[in-house]
Amino acid sequence: MGTKTSSSSVINSVIVQKYGGSSVADVDRIRNVANRIAKRVREGHKVVTVVSAMGKTTDNLISMAKSLVPKPDERELDMLLTTGEQISCALVAMALKDIGINAISLNAFQIRVLTTRHHTNARIMDIDEKRLKKYLQEHDVLVITGFQGITEDEHLTTLGRGGSDTSAVALAAKLGCDCEIYSDVAGVYTCDPKLYPQTKKLKYITYDDMLELAATGAKVLHSRSVEIAKKYNVRVYCGSSFSDEEGTWVVGTLPEWLEEPLVTGVSLDRNQVKVSIMDLPNDANIISDIFKRVAEKGINVDMISLVKNGTSTHLSFTVVPDRVEKIKDLLDDTLSVYGAKYHFYGQFAKITVVGTGMRSHYGVASKFLEVISKNGIEPEIITTSEIKISVLVPEEKAEELMKNICEEFDL
Amino acid sequence: MGTKTSSSSVINSVIVQKYGGSSVADVDRIRNVANRIAKRVREGHKVVTVVSAMGKTTDNLISMAKSLVPKPDERELDMLLTTGEQISCALVAMALKDIGINAISLNAFQIRVLTTRHHTNARIMDIDEKRLKKYLQEHDVLVITGFQGITEDEHLTTLGRGGSDTSAVALAAKLGCDCEIYSDVAGVYTCDPKLYPQTKKLKYITYDDMLELAATGAKVLHSRSVEIAKKYNVRVYCGSSFSDEEGTWVVGTLPEWLEEPLVTGVSLDRNQVKVSIMDLPNDANIISDIFKRVAEKGINVDMISLVKNGTSTHLSFTVVPDRVEKIKDLLDDTLSVYGAKYHFYGQFAKITVVGTGMRSHYGVASKFLEVISKNGIEPEIITTSEIKISVLVPEEKAEELMKNICEEFDL
Repeated sequence: MGTKTSSSSVINSVIVQKYGGSSVADVDRIRNVANRIAKRVREGHKVVTVVSAMGKTTDNLISMAKSLVPKPDERELDMLLTTGEQISCALVAMALKDIGINAISLNAFQIRVLTTRHHTNARIMDIDEKRLKKYLQEHDVLVITGFQGITEDEHLTTLGRGGSDTSAVALAAKLGCDCEIYSDVAGVYTCDPKLYPQTKKLKYITYDDMLELAATGAKVLHSRSVEIAKKYNVRVYCGSSFSDEEGTWVVGTLPEWLEEPLVTGVSLDRNQVKVSIMDLPNDANIISDIFKRVAEKGINVDMISLVKNGTSTHLSFTVVPDRVEKIKDLLDDTLSVYGAKYHFYGQFAKITVVGTGMRSHYGVASKFLEVISKNGIEPEIITTSEIKISVLVPEEKAEELMKNICEEFDL
Repeated sequence: MGTKTSSSSVINSVIVQKYGGSSVADVDRIRNVANRIAKRVREGHKVVTVVSAMGKTTDNLISMAKSLVPKPDERELDMLLTTGEQISCALVAMALKDIGINAISLNAFQIRVLTTRHHTNARIMDIDEKRLKKYLQEHDVLVITGFQGITEDEHLTTLGRGGSDTSAVALAAKLGCDCEIYSDVAGVYTCDPKLYPQTKKLKYITYDDMLELAATGAKVLHSRSVEIAKKYNVRVYCGSSFSDEEGTWVVGTLPEWLEEPLVTGVSLDRNQVKVSIMDLPNDANIISDIFKRVAEKGINVDMISLVKNGTSTHLSFTVVPDRVEKIKDLLDDTLSVYGAKYHFYGQFAKITVVGTGMRSHYGVASKFLEVISKNGIEPEIITTSEIKISVLVPEEKAEELMKNICEEFDL
């Protein structure tokens, strides 16, 4: 990403908005989104709107590809999936023009959203600021395809599930403005209201806490988007596209009048697969070689735990199920040389408690582990950072445990 | 279009194939298309495949746009519709890779299919030969989105219904090779088999005859594609994607052993609207002004008839129904100045008999008009060229008339 600019008059009144798939799921909702955008234009803003694919479009396209071939080529999968956002962008722009707004839809080619080459999981490297500003001079609203980019040699890429958030924040960073993320959830809660109805909505949350929550299963914001927001200090507002209920601001530091809570939130990440590799030689180069190969394939591994004994090393880590095939191919290629074996264990869930407040308070970890043990659960993996603690537990026990944690930490 | 090249070894073995929407309507048909392409690759060819949108995709996207807004913006409509071909191209490329073929899908941005700015009805101006050849060096099959292009300032355009034929022939012209057009029809018939089951399939047809048939409703080839084939002398083969039945070659001149028929075919074009403008001043500048404005809007008018009397001029022409709105806006703007009125008359059909043989034979016109009058029909407009005669007749009488014409001319 290049540097921010903020001096031009064009830029001063710009806001970036992002609407998720459920907000544009049908023509009535698209009209609703158009009216919301039009309201901001009439207030005097120029609006850069990032739109996800309509409703279940992306899932449906993936299903179609998988019904055609067992392992769709990832470059072609990106070519397929990027159509979803182009459809919703064109429709939103049509709806805006129909109500008299000077709007234009633009895809990843048209504004040169340059990404890495990791198909299905690429990262934004740059966006063509000159093109953006030219289009902003000519139009009041740019409706931009989220979730997608192009490589330097012009292949289409996608940013991974939830990547439209990242597109939106990257655009706000480029334009030096705030970013509003609209979905069917009215903000950031201390935990998932479906799991614990007494949950509280936060007015503010720090980038760091949001980053941990996003990375660990809270579906409000894509974690890469929070990283970019933090790096470029973009203020992100999360709200509902269906109501005017007050949402949550994601910011660098909390307002001074707000007392910092011990624990900000707790998140649940279902559907985790544990990969265990046994009997590796005690050699740090081998571990590093394995993770290098994993990274080269664009696979994110999550919780990592390593146990060394006298003669060999056991390594465990977690991945999402749709990466299992890739990991399997990779381990088949790699491990035979070392005489090591691997196993996959499915049906786990990761529970994470997050709070910048942990930095200055002791006892969160012990209280957390106490609740787990009271529930009669043996954690599979525990990982910690300065501001979070995660445990991997059997999926069927996770919901009950979540509720107990919320009660214990007053969330 | 640039000049043809034919000396390079890469080029010698290239063929262009185009598969229509019904040939890629579902995953089974896509697998079938992939197998047909793979067969040609294994014979030693490089294949450039142009693919239409799956089945009814384009119609469905148009319906969705029209359910959102009454008059979808055409620039945005193109942005919407171009997704259809990108989806089918990605799927065909996946299916090819799955059976071990080195294929890649490419859209209008990636090979720079440069067109005019007439959204929804643009014309191809150039295709980037260097990019094409680079991709052909790296891959055995290029799967290219038909029907679409980009303008010089990178807006997406579409070429009008059936435009994928044009994309295919333009690519063949660029590459200096033959073009195979596959659809659910096994070739070019003297008339529509649905209307006259005794119709005959032609082994060869000249560009000129095909051009007249294509322009007048025979749906086998888009007429712009035949114009390009004629201009660059591309041999076009029309066949079925579902069988190996022998199809029809569209060529510059018939093989010498083939006796030139008097009439090559007859076509029916339903759903014609007659536009009548009454009481125009007798001033050629006005007529020219009207058609200039019509052309600027990218509207094709078809049969034109003009009657001048002492004080005023009556002008009639035909258009397809989905251009009526545009014509109406235009005439409202234009005619009031001259005090002229206009009317639309719907529900007509155009019947055209075509044959290069007419050039050297008399009596085709009189025989044709005799059949019409025997059927008790009063033609609304008659237009003729060296190799065809068209009449506009009430739509409900058209089918019966077609049959009588086929019998009379032994088609």
